[in-house]
Amino acid sequence: MDDIKPYVQQHKDRFINELIDLLKIPSVSADSAYSQDVIDMSEAVKKSLEEAGCDKVEICDTPGYPIVYGEKIINPELPTVLVYGHYDVQPPDPMDLWTSPPFEPVIKKTEIHPEGAIFARGACDDKGQMYMHVKALEYMVRTNTLPCNVKFMIEGEEEVGSKSLGWFVERNQEKLKNDVILISDTGMISNQQPSITTGLRGLSYVEVEVTGPNRDLHSGLYGGAVANPINILAKMIASLHDENNHITIPGFYDKVEELSREERDEMAKAPFSLENYKKALDIDDIYGEAGYVTNERNSIRPTLDVNGIWGGYTGEGAKTVIASKAYAKISMRLVPNQDWEEITQLFTKHFESIAPKSVKVKVTPHHGGQGYVTPTDSIGYQAAAKAYNESFGVKPIPVRSGGSIPIVALFEKELKSKTIMMGFGLDSDAIHSPNEHFGVFNYLKGIETIPLFYKYFVELSK
Amino acid sequence: MDDIKPYVQQHKDRFINELIDLLKIPSVSADSAYSQDVIDMSEAVKKSLEEAGCDKVEICDTPGYPIVYGEKIINPELPTVLVYGHYDVQPPDPMDLWTSPPFEPVIKKTEIHPEGAIFARGACDDKGQMYMHVKALEYMVRTNTLPCNVKFMIEGEEEVGSKSLGWFVERNQEKLKNDVILISDTGMISNQQPSITTGLRGLSYVEVEVTGPNRDLHSGLYGGAVANPINILAKMIASLHDENNHITIPGFYDKVEELSREERDEMAKAPFSLENYKKALDIDDIYGEAGYVTNERNSIRPTLDVNGIWGGYTGEGAKTVIASKAYAKISMRLVPNQDWEEITQLFTKHFESIAPKSVKVKVTPHHGGQGYVTPTDSIGYQAAAKAYNESFGVKPIPVRSGGSIPIVALFEKELKSKTIMMGFGLDSDAIHSPNEHFGVFNYLKGIETIPLFYKYFVELSK
Repeated sequence: MDDIKPYVQQHKDRFINELIDLLKIPSVSADSAYSQDVIDMSEAVKKSLEEAGCDKVEICDTPGYPIVYGEKIINPELPTVLVYGHYDVQPPDPMDLWTSPPFEPVIKKTEIHPEGAIFARGACDDKGQMYMHVKALEYMVRTNTLPCNVKFMIEGEEEVGSKSLGWFVERNQEKLKNDVILISDTGMISNQQPSITTGLRGLSYVEVEVTGPNRDLHSGLYGGAVANPINILAKMIASLHDENNHITIPGFYDKVEELSREERDEMAKAPFSLENYKKALDIDDIYGEAGYVTNERNSIRPTLDVNGIWGGYTGEGAKTVIASKAYAKISMRLVPNQDWEEITQLFTKHFESIAPKSVKVKVTPHHGGQGYVTPTDSIGYQAAAKAYNESFGVKPIPVRSGGSIPIVALFEKELKSKTIMMGFGLDSDAIHSPNEHFGVFNYLKGIETIPLFYKYFVELSK
Repeated sequence: MDDIKPYVQQHKDRFINELIDLLKIPSVSADSAYSQDVIDMSEAVKKSLEEAGCDKVEICDTPGYPIVYGEKIINPELPTVLVYGHYDVQPPDPMDLWTSPPFEPVIKKTEIHPEGAIFARGACDDKGQMYMHVKALEYMVRTNTLPCNVKFMIEGEEEVGSKSLGWFVERNQEKLKNDVILISDTGMISNQQPSITTGLRGLSYVEVEVTGPNRDLHSGLYGGAVANPINILAKMIASLHDENNHITIPGFYDKVEELSREERDEMAKAPFSLENYKKALDIDDIYGEAGYVTNERNSIRPTLDVNGIWGGYTGEGAKTVIASKAYAKISMRLVPNQDWEEITQLFTKHFESIAPKSVKVKVTPHHGGQGYVTPTDSIGYQAAAKAYNESFGVKPIPVRSGGSIPIVALFEKELKSKTIMMGFGLDSDAIHSPNEHFGVFNYLKGIETIPLFYKYFVELSK
């Protein structure tokens, strides 16, 4: 595979333009206004897999958005790699903070990406990282270097909790049979220091509704005499953390895995500058659970964050009203061993219990998923480490990510195979934020690294 | 004035239709999208004053929306009544809770209004109550029974803090010279038990902005490690009340007038059913400051309510984001002796002081006004009491209202005259809420009662 570098150099303009075409499709799964675009995107993915050299590609219907399945089986005796990715993207709002339209991709140079980055919703999460695998397959097929069988499963509901994926995986265990699962939907430390994500946090996402009076009231005539749902909701949310920023939900920490001092010392070796971190976010101070440092707070510790809140008059000017209802979207990041359904129940029970008699509370679970840890002594991890080492010239560091890919735990349960998370994005790529982007260097480096994983995985499997 | 009842009966259909025409104009002052409608409304008020018999009517420009001034001077030696009202209305949202469109008035019977009520934004607050005075003038002019001079000052910015009124009053003290000011922008206990508002609460209305990271962040990668502006805002809002629902802002209560046991016992005589109150609002329990009953909490005690809150993702579905900013609109109702500008400063200082170093806080004052108390031994109050007594056949009860008409204190300061608040609305009229309405009985009763005030005021002034 010595010709991979020159192959990527020769075709890089086409690789970039093909990705840009995919990024122009606003496949926002959370907003039904975009449903036709999500469907269009699944067709585009199917086409790209066929052109890359899959023998068989099909768009599989589900109760929700379709899953694109593709495969190239060269020899049933050889190992099989299952590539997972998603073609849906996060909503783009707040739109006014984008420096260029989210679905009109442009390449701009940044401090971290001197050779340019592609700015668009989904550039990194996950269209760009998913398409690296498509182009890696193209290379291996055209140069006749594909060393094993490969299957693709690209879904369209990852950003809304992969509702249909479990349904699909359970019904297609034979079709999806594999020896290792490969996902690029995470990040690495820097372009100089690659890393491989070995842990993911679980997730429980709920929506709460607090109802006070049966109608909006005049705050002068009723103010002070009836419970104001917004004040009550604020009080209830505030009470979910104590003065040490520990979460106060009874039983919440019961199953949390406590890492040993040694493991935490190992984690602390990952390069990290608190000053740069604060500078990048323009904050004067960090904030979090007492007794843990930043890199622990966002990886090995569970969290509770309000992702959205609304109620009352939010328009221009002033309205002296006491709202009838107030709402919040709340998500909890979970660590391995915490069961997301159990946590959702604990939250619901607790939230209902702390509501004063003067309001009614409704908790609606949105979705969730379990945490996961990849063993670094597995063949898959070893193959990935060798691949990064060869393409970057630096040994990758194993890191625990704070993010969640709920379906990784599901894959292990249903397909009995390990997942390797080969991420090529950077924390600064602003995924889920305005001005999401993906470095051209990272994109091309991913295409260059992936075939090496196939090579070493097959070698180590012998 | 014995022919007032028959006159009202004879013309009531026209009186109702004229009001309905005014209610069709969406004069929402808080939203600039309606600015032309507000201007149109001022023209309609001018026309109505001319038709009612004013000698001189003019639309006076201000830095904001115009003020309609009208007068009928029959004899400079006689007393002069200045009528104040406002032609702007509250925003109609939430629209989906209206059973009929807010600016398409319809008459519907209700339990409390068996002879029908006019449903529309502004029906009671304040177009209906303002127009009672226009029709009362029409009666007195046409029957040649106007016993004194009358001036009208109808503004278009009351629902956004009467920004231009102070500017106008200061510059027109001679033009506005009067012996008593008459306002119908409050309510009464019930159609069987009239009451006169003798006290109003002051108001301080602010908007707060909490900024955390400089951009929206992925809650998985950053959750738990940086301050979430929504969680912080909730914590800060929650801390503004203690466990007894006392407001925690240092100095907030320093100037609050404490009523004597006797005064509170007097207040307690006003008919009130806690069961009906809870039933009408569909709440299982009331909520408020320890040590005070409902009718004290919403009248003689200051309050702090969040009128609106927003931040993060509030759309359909789920978005795992940590917002960069969170906002709230917060208003405080104040009692006599509390200075609204001082309270606004105390709030700002305190709110900034409780913000953790990990966020930035901005407090923007919207508007405010002082509280006010009308002495029940004044000629104006006595005249109003006799007028109600004659038209309702029941002696009115003096009550302290929780609402605010900030300009009443301004009038006393600038024009050196007392304000009499002759309100004919009911608490159940849903002002500032969806389905605002005004009883036909109340509307006509107001037109019938107002001329009697003129009569007795002139008699008692001799």
